[in-house]
Amino acid sequence: MQAEIITIGDEILIGQIIDTNSAWIAQQLNAIGIRVKQISSVADDPADILVALTLASGRADLILVTGGLGPTKDDVTKQTLSRYFDCGLRRAPEVLAHVESIFQKSNRPMLEINRRQADVLDKSEVLFNEMGTAPGMWVMHHQKPYVIMPGVPFEMKHIMQERVLPRLRNLEGRIPVWHHTVLTAGIGESFLAEKIADIEAALPSHIHLAYLPKPGIVRLRLTAIGKNQEELKLETQAFVNQLKERLGEHFLSDTDTTLENLILDFMKQRQLLLATAESCTGGSIARRITSLPGSSSIFEGGAVTYSNAMKQTVLGVMPETLDRYGAVSEETVREMATGAQANFRTDYAIAVSGIAGPDGGTPEKPVGLVWIAVAGKKRVITRKHLFGQDRAVNIERSSTAALWMLWQLLYTETNANGTV
Amino acid sequence: MQAEIITIGDEILIGQIIDTNSAWIAQQLNAIGIRVKQISSVADDPADILVALTLASGRADLILVTGGLGPTKDDVTKQTLSRYFDCGLRRAPEVLAHVESIFQKSNRPMLEINRRQADVLDKSEVLFNEMGTAPGMWVMHHQKPYVIMPGVPFEMKHIMQERVLPRLRNLEGRIPVWHHTVLTAGIGESFLAEKIADIEAALPSHIHLAYLPKPGIVRLRLTAIGKNQEELKLETQAFVNQLKERLGEHFLSDTDTTLENLILDFMKQRQLLLATAESCTGGSIARRITSLPGSSSIFEGGAVTYSNAMKQTVLGVMPETLDRYGAVSEETVREMATGAQANFRTDYAIAVSGIAGPDGGTPEKPVGLVWIAVAGKKRVITRKHLFGQDRAVNIERSSTAALWMLWQLLYTETNANGTV
Repeated sequence: MQAEIITIGDEILIGQIIDTNSAWIAQQLNAIGIRVKQISSVADDPADILVALTLASGRADLILVTGGLGPTKDDVTKQTLSRYFDCGLRRAPEVLAHVESIFQKSNRPMLEINRRQADVLDKSEVLFNEMGTAPGMWVMHHQKPYVIMPGVPFEMKHIMQERVLPRLRNLEGRIPVWHHTVLTAGIGESFLAEKIADIEAALPSHIHLAYLPKPGIVRLRLTAIGKNQEELKLETQAFVNQLKERLGEHFLSDTDTTLENLILDFMKQRQLLLATAESCTGGSIARRITSLPGSSSIFEGGAVTYSNAMKQTVLGVMPETLDRYGAVSEETVREMATGAQANFRTDYAIAVSGIAGPDGGTPEKPVGLVWIAVAGKKRVITRKHLFGQDRAVNIERSSTAALWMLWQLLYTETNANGTV
Repeated sequence: MQAEIITIGDEILIGQIIDTNSAWIAQQLNAIGIRVKQISSVADDPADILVALTLASGRADLILVTGGLGPTKDDVTKQTLSRYFDCGLRRAPEVLAHVESIFQKSNRPMLEINRRQADVLDKSEVLFNEMGTAPGMWVMHHQKPYVIMPGVPFEMKHIMQERVLPRLRNLEGRIPVWHHTVLTAGIGESFLAEKIADIEAALPSHIHLAYLPKPGIVRLRLTAIGKNQEELKLETQAFVNQLKERLGEHFLSDTDTTLENLILDFMKQRQLLLATAESCTGGSIARRITSLPGSSSIFEGGAVTYSNAMKQTVLGVMPETLDRYGAVSEETVREMATGAQANFRTDYAIAVSGIAGPDGGTPEKPVGLVWIAVAGKKRVITRKHLFGQDRAVNIERSSTAALWMLWQLLYTETNANGTV
């Protein structure tokens, strides 16, 4: 079974928002054996929406549409859909009651455009939306299901999880697909490919290997298609085991996770505490860790010390160190890490100081120069990086590099005596 | 002139990565009068790529393709393109020399798959890529330009800015489009629509108004199409002036900017310093500010105080306050803000403490409860919010609400006596 996702909205085509819905929907569909054939983004324009629906119906067995249902533009979308499905609109009383209750709760008067949110396609079953005023709709048309949902991400996710995925799991014709992702670090895409060339060459034709590079990390994704899912799991697992053995220290995980997730699980199990001391990354490392539920069990907190004054008062960096070596130096970053570890009373501390750009570079210390230190139970490790010119990329690379150093130190210190 | 963007890559269709390239490309094209008709994402599959190219060539005057050019999968893409364009491949010596120099610099041996990165379509002009090993290509085919670029965002952006946009600016048939965006805050989408209904109704048919809601902020975008660009600017400006007058305190800016950018400019001009004290937002506010170039001129730094111990040691919150009122309370967040302001010696400080979820809620203090304080020159303001269940959404809403409170306090304190 193949699906197509259509996102409606001028805001996507002029680049004012990034479409994050499609990736999320694709993940959910893949997990239940539905492959996404294409994702198309079209304008809030009746002709474009009609063409997209018609082409999608020729390619796919299931069509999911998001966007275009907010109170100020649902008219265009709903009128176009009613033309495509050749049916009228009805006002759904249960939706109207829900919209009214939202307005009552917040003590706001209700307008006619809010009431119109309760209008749904005659042919549709309502996919009730507890999270907002625009309901989803499920339409069967020429034996194919169409799922119409609002574009607000958390509303769409709610409708998918509560109403759509349970129905899709009952559809026939889903082809088992199994993805198994391996995380690698410290090795570039080409070298990885060379290193595992014979393993890749030996893959059967229904298993495919893809390389997905990000700054500092390459993910290897094995995709197996078309048999019993349990068999596919066993088959891919055998290749994952080969990859693990071959990759050695470059093998990070055999699940599609993140560095920060690995660190959280590892430290939680061992009841270890972490602190951060960030200059050029400006809170990005703390944010990556605290974005995870349960991170409070390992994360005491951190300091974002942009100024030299704060490096001294909060982290205890010596004024002489700053004077002599500067804020971006091995000496300073080392004192930042040990200062955070001591002042915030944690087992481990990460510190980063660098020049993210675009300004602030000198011939000796150019934009992209970043020093990282990680203080552990037994020692402090430091590393110098020379990244590029782009501020956002430098910040991302620095935070990934710092988390990777923490991971390495955690791993060595813990495995060295097996007890930490 | 209308364009279509095609992104190639299984990783997009299984939802492993989010396509951020298309939005960026669309913005750039719009700015020079080229409208994007459709964005299509297809798999690394010759048949799908050929269909997408054929359909796009029927809809658009310009086709931009990204992705599928990395060393491990450029074979499929380049072979498919050579079929579509009916031409062979040649090894470009200047690209080969560049790839070789990259490998020499990093002292890595070069492999045959790296050399193949220098293979380009016979018919194409090379769009040189200083940032990576995969070159872009420009192909004229049946009088239409095709732009082929790697999918790595900073490489694609570099090629667009240096090689593609200068060429596109010389194409004929671009239709002047002008977007003018107004930022509003503190008013929902429906009420905004009601408040400005007569202004919207009076818009001429070539000017269109769109509502783009985000947590805490609604952007209003005026799009004018099809005349002389200078005229369009004047016409939309007249409507922006009407909106500004009508919206009063809800009017935030008449440029498409961000709250953090407005705050940076405002504080920089007045030489004011800022600090942050974050609990549940975990560094997100600091990160939003420090993502901006030049933020070091206003941002001293901040603390991410996840533990109560750090709230006391770093921010000076009284143990009795934490005992009596708890970490998520007006009293604590007030002391966090004044503590950050005093300890980090800044003019303003933002503090946030809340329960982001999914765990940690109680009947009295449920998930989604967030207290925010902003300490200013003359007073401290506090506000309580009750957001929803989603951790990521709660973090985003809290950081937007905190920046919005800072903006309001800055504005009042500065305008009250005109001197601060």
